Amino acid sequence: MSGPNKGRKTRDYPLLELRGRSFCSTGDFTREELSELLDLAMKFKTVGHGQPLAGRGVALIFFNPSLRTRTSMELGVAQLGGTPITLEVGSGTWSLEWREGVVMDGTATEHIKDAVQVLSRYVDAIAVRCFPGLKSWEEDRNDPVLSEFRRYSKVPIINMESSLYHPCQGLADVLTMHEALGSLDRRKVTLAWVKHPKPLPHAVPNSFALGCAQFGMDLTIACPPEYRLSDEMMSQLETQAGTSGGSVRVINDLNEGLTGAEIVYAKSWAGLPFYGDPEADRTARAAYQDWIINAGNMRLTAKRRFLH
Amino acid sequence: MSGPNKGRKTRDYPLLELRGRSFCSTGDFTREELSELLDLAMKFKTVGHGQPLAGRGVALIFFNPSLRTRTSMELGVAQLGGTPITLEVGSGTWSLEWREGVVMDGTATEHIKDAVQVLSRYVDAIAVRCFPGLKSWEEDRNDPVLSEFRRYSKVPIINMESSLYHPCQGLADVLTMHEALGSLDRRKVTLAWVKHPKPLPHAVPNSFALGCAQFGMDLTIACPPEYRLSDEMMSQLETQAGTSGGSVRVINDLNEGLTGAEIVYAKSWAGLPFYGDPEADRTARAAYQDWIINAGNMRLTAKRRFLH
Amino acid sequence: MSGPNKGRKTRDYPLLELRGRSFCSTGDFTREELSELLDLAMKFKTVGHGQPLAGRGVALIFFNPSLRTRTSMELGVAQLGGTPITLEVGSGTWSLEWREGVVMDGTATEHIKDAVQVLSRYVDAIAVRCFPGLKSWEEDRNDPVLSEFRRYSKVPIINMESSLYHPCQGLADVLTMHEALGSLDRRKVTLAWVKHPKPLPHAVPNSFALGCAQFGMDLTIACPPEYRLSDEMMSQLETQAGTSGGSVRVINDLNEGLTGAEIVYAKSWAGLPFYGDPEADRTARAAYQDWIINAGNMRLTAKRRFLH
Repeated sequence: MSGPNKGRKTRDYPLLELRGRSFCSTGDFTREELSELLDLAMKFKTVGHGQPLAGRGVALIFFNPSLRTRTSMELGVAQLGGTPITLEVGSGTWSLEWREGVVMDGTATEHIKDAVQVLSRYVDAIAVRCFPGLKSWEEDRNDPVLSEFRRYSKVPIINMESSLYHPCQGLADVLTMHEALGSLDRRKVTLAWVKHPKPLPHAVPNSFALGCAQFGMDLTIACPPEYRLSDEMMSQLETQAGTSGGSVRVINDLNEGLTGAEIVYAKSWAGLPFYGDPEADRTARAAYQDWIINAGNMRLTAKRRFLH
Repeated sequence: MSGPNKGRKTRDYPLLELRGRSFCSTGDFTREELSELLDLAMKFKTVGHGQPLAGRGVALIFFNPSLRTRTSMELGVAQLGGTPITLEVGSGTWSLEWREGVVMDGTATEHIKDAVQVLSRYVDAIAVRCFPGLKSWEEDRNDPVLSEFRRYSKVPIINMESSLYHPCQGLADVLTMHEALGSLDRRKVTLAWVKHPKPLPHAVPNSFALGCAQFGMDLTIACPPEYRLSDEMMSQLETQAGTSGGSVRVINDLNEGLTGAEIVYAKSWAGLPFYGDPEADRTARAAYQDWIINAGNMRLTAKRRFLH
Repeated sequence: MSGPNKGRKTRDYPLLELRGRSFCSTGDFTREELSELLDLAMKFKTVGHGQPLAGRGVALIFFNPSLRTRTSMELGVAQLGGTPITLEVGSGTWSLEWREGVVMDGTATEHIKDAVQVLSRYVDAIAVRCFPGLKSWEEDRNDPVLSEFRRYSKVPIINMESSLYHPCQGLADVLTMHEALGSLDRRKVTLAWVKHPKPLPHAVPNSFALGCAQFGMDLTIACPPEYRLSDEMMSQLETQAGTSGGSVRVINDLNEGLTGAEIVYAKSWAGLPFYGDPEADRTARAAYQDWIINAGNMRLTAKRRFLH
């Protein structure tokens, strides 16, 4: 991956500085480190990988159902020689409580703190999927479940989609764009909000936007005014774009947002002003029936490349 | 397995023509191919097998609960060196919708089409268990879930019991009969309908009957008139018996059906005239309280060999 | 583990007499055999273990949810080279009926007898977790589910916590105490009943007490009169203490029970007089609000060593 990887110094011990670190958001890593991860991924894919996880256990904790992530993670861990331990929280099995003050009265419920401390002794890494509750933004904005895992784990935490981030997806999207465009610097990409029957989490658009900003792209976020990403996110995007030489802007008009885009990424997400109130979100969305991507508005883009 | 395998030509590349094919019904394979499969199974059992699935992933999708099939499939894949990925559909985890027109409104539900296309990229084969709904024969007769898997998968589909067939069980039954009788050609076998508290699926009797017909046996199906197998099935049985040199007949009297049988296979199944109406089926069954296999009527058979 | 292992004879074939035996209670094994197991565990931990389970399958049957036991068992079997098959009974998947007379009317339910006989043919050992129903002591005192597994299995049964015993935990507690104290003979240990919001099973205190008695410790059980362990258990403890040279006594006063203890193990459990009646148990417990372990009463002990 020579494109996004420009300026990387030769190292005798590649990935040395990544060992032991959690992977919770691409924002925790420099562009150079992420590029090295992508290089390694490509090497695994093309040259092969051996069994670097031989004798290792990786817990895969799912607070939410999953097909793709579960299958690819179980298979990935096994093919690298490790043992995946899949645990589904809540669905008839056992449940985990992340709020420290809450008194447990059932035998099937325990605090994340205890669970994570124990798991840390058994396995070499813990991967977690924990969607937001979509009830309270004050709660979800702190990524409470993932935060507790990070706080109490003695082994690296891998985020398989949390309230705020989906870094594996975000990095895969960077790779896909790199394969389509080559160098990503100053390439025009539009993240377009589109209508959907339900208010959806921010993790995927957040991590997509972050990847674009970290790899020096000129990112346009096209969305109705009520569907702006969070202030924390916007500020993070601007900082990253400043570092990478890219840019970020928000446009409240879909056609204007699509014009000249080399890549369009369509996604729906909940409006923060209506967070926890699906009815109010539905009412707001009703005014944006024309926020869809079709052959007509794709003509406004530069190359008609569409990701979904 | 020299008995059922007579007439097989020597081949330099055994099983070459089976590579990449789905295993959804024994009816999709010639007797020679099935015999070769059984030979290979016996060789694995007696001589050993190595790790032919090393580096391969096999998805095991269960729309319905399972103990035997799940345990034997997980263990089988692992012992051949592969990685089984078990996914339970619906039970608190995620659900799959096979009807193309249906609009998804939940995050946990997706169309089989999307799921299968993704799985096809991750794994090397997909095994599926999908019982019939037992509500509508018009629906179940098309084996809708299995059909969608076949339609969208780019890797082989293995049927772990669908609406219409249970080919692994059917082939195992052929092997059991071969071990008991030697050559199966023109051996008298009776598939006897017996009473049961509930209307049950046709997959097991269908695949048993099909195996008998494909291996040249003289098959008697003993059942009350309302419990005839489907017309499609009967026609398939007659075609296969014609090819194999066997025969198939239906007898509406249990004692007459048992007389002279070298093997009796007892099984209950739903009456097609009452499909989707368990109450009507119960009323019909009430007239057939004496459709049971016991020491008395087993005396009518030739060898008192009983499978269940 | 030279301490608890004193008097062990040299053997050419270590563990030979353990091969093929079930591990349902430490009480089924001599102190010498348990010491050998612990020696082997320490050797695995320090020297390494190879792949003694290569090609073997182990079914892990969970009637109840589990995090620690499930993770450690799956990982343990895999790291020793075997294939763990995890089956969760009841939770949306399938259920097992242990009462022989009960008529099955659903396709998802089957008798343990059939299930265990089939599993015995597939796997090399069956591990079971089956908590008590906590409804009827007459039922739970016979450890009905575990008993059926033992009765019908042709391969060893491993108890991952049943109605009456948790031998893996009990043996681990012995190891922990040995690491803290060296030789366990005549060491003073107190099993202290403490209050808890709910009546809890006896398996953990039973197996802890049994381990103490089997390894020659001077065991004090401190509990209110209504919370005495069962008569069967007390009689077993006395027999084991007689064999090992240890002792066992019950004290109905917490402070007196703690005085001079070298190790305190705090645990709550249901009162047998109120078994199946949580309300009556709650009323009884209300009189024992001061049955807690704190810095104050830990001063009465000899070394302030506390296990939980």
